Amino acid sequence: MNPDLNDFLFSILDIIGTFVFAISGAQAAKERELDLFGLFIISFLTACGGGIVRDICLGITPPVGISQWIYLALSALASLAFILFQNYISKLNYPVLLFDALGLSLFAVAGAQKSLFLGQNYGVAIVLGVLSAIGGGIIRDILLGGVPVVFRKEVYGSAALIGSSIVVLFHYFNLNSTSGAWLAMIVCFCIRYFSIKNKWNLPRI
Amino acid sequence: MNPDLNDFLFSILDIIGTFVFAISGAQAAKERELDLFGLFIISFLTACGGGIVRDICLGITPPVGISQWIYLALSALASLAFILFQNYISKLNYPVLLFDALGLSLFAVAGAQKSLFLGQNYGVAIVLGVLSAIGGGIIRDILLGGVPVVFRKEVYGSAALIGSSIVVLFHYFNLNSTSGAWLAMIVCFCIRYFSIKNKWNLPRI
Amino acid sequence: MNPDLNDFLFSILDIIGTFVFAISGAQAAKERELDLFGLFIISFLTACGGGIVRDICLGITPPVGISQWIYLALSALASLAFILFQNYISKLNYPVLLFDALGLSLFAVAGAQKSLFLGQNYGVAIVLGVLSAIGGGIIRDILLGGVPVVFRKEVYGSAALIGSSIVVLFHYFNLNSTSGAWLAMIVCFCIRYFSIKNKWNLPRI
Repeated sequence: MNPDLNDFLFSILDIIGTFVFAISGAQAAKERELDLFGLFIISFLTACGGGIVRDICLGITPPVGISQWIYLALSALASLAFILFQNYISKLNYPVLLFDALGLSLFAVAGAQKSLFLGQNYGVAIVLGVLSAIGGGIIRDILLGGVPVVFRKEVYGSAALIGSSIVVLFHYFNLNSTSGAWLAMIVCFCIRYFSIKNKWNLPRI
Repeated sequence: MNPDLNDFLFSILDIIGTFVFAISGAQAAKERELDLFGLFIISFLTACGGGIVRDICLGITPPVGISQWIYLALSALASLAFILFQNYISKLNYPVLLFDALGLSLFAVAGAQKSLFLGQNYGVAIVLGVLSAIGGGIIRDILLGGVPVVFRKEVYGSAALIGSSIVVLFHYFNLNSTSGAWLAMIVCFCIRYFSIKNKWNLPRI
Repeated sequence: MNPDLNDFLFSILDIIGTFVFAISGAQAAKERELDLFGLFIISFLTACGGGIVRDICLGITPPVGISQWIYLALSALASLAFILFQNYISKLNYPVLLFDALGLSLFAVAGAQKSLFLGQNYGVAIVLGVLSAIGGGIIRDILLGGVPVVFRKEVYGSAALIGSSIVVLFHYFNLNSTSGAWLAMIVCFCIRYFSIKNKWNLPRI
């Protein structure tokens, strides 16, 4: 694929992912009856918290989620959209889940790629890929006083784990990284999609 | 104003703010029946946690809240003072709220200034100003198992947001930064003061 | 003592400590009915979270707990061992407590030593020694929705505090650091051991 087109598609997915994660933060904040300030902060941290912690682990300071205005702007826009259209959005449960799965896939892949690009080893790339994808949701749930849902049910974190691992495998075997990224995203998305559709859960002990 | 006097006043406010935030941590720890070790840790993190996270985001390691003994000493002193005079302190609700508003104002302004001084952009300065001011209280509430009060009621974080923004506006328009800092603190303090007096809350949705 | 033998013993203790902390994480995760993904993450963060936060505070990125595969492998192994032998392990309450005390002592001492080795001051060494030792348990408890047990009962964090302080005292008086490390570990371990045996608690106010 044309590299410029590829970068463009990645940027679009990044924007969609950030926006939808921010919406999910705003929704959770509303359910816990936060005020407007709390709603915005939770929305921002749900969207950008995973990437912020990843950047801190990589020594990138200030984290990109803070230093690039687009992420603050997207979170503010998502909060506003949620406030204005909440009745409409709450009926959109299924589309929101799908876009959330898109964000999950993109963040897992982008986090792993960023780590590899900075010369980190494979373990770091997988861990930080997963962290990028699920970190925001964990921060959201902790700030709202619950046990993070990603630890309890559905197939979510493990989809991100498989996505990150595919990126790493392509790197290890010196295969084309762009193809690897797209394959990883598609696999991660499909796992998440079928897990929603079929109500899969990981086993407990 | 004489720059030395200005620095001196800022140091005094920093000490007062740290001390009062540490007292609020100790009080919350007591209400949750922590032991002495827990009380001291919560007291320290309430006072210094916001600044510690801010410094990590700015790449300042180890964070000043850990590397300068004055902050550990102030937290220990505040814990001790709280233990010895708790009956007296719990009657001082109103003065403690006022000093807490002072600390909030100072931390918001100092966090934004520090970021600008290090060459960070305006978004970073505002975010890290707010984080400096409210981060400690958020850490306190999470460690004690509740949803952070700053997300739920009163006008607290938004006062810090306005304070940080004033610092940034003065910088943007190349105005005198000392005047900007004092104005920002006064505005932030007044908003907080009147919100306590009149029991203001931000709207919920 | 032969320095090689000394390093070898420290490595062994580090492995034991990591493994036992990971087991305690898995056990807590099971009690809260997490799924397998959650169990592994909690297990990893209980074992390595304290060291990860310490490394971030010291500017070591990525933190060693992520960048060295041995820690991920030990956590995975501990999770697996727990799943396979949980009935057996839950009967081993007393031995697990003893090994946990070993881990506590080792992590407190190693955290303080690492800070001093990097040229940090005494306050940083003590704070980061304690953080290395108790940070993982705090993260575990917060992720599982409770107030960290280290703040509420038993003598745990204060044992780590005394261990870290002994390391710092030996450094201050220019005494042999290897002897200091072993003495610190023994004292920390004994305090913890007798506090379990005699059900000591720190006072509350």
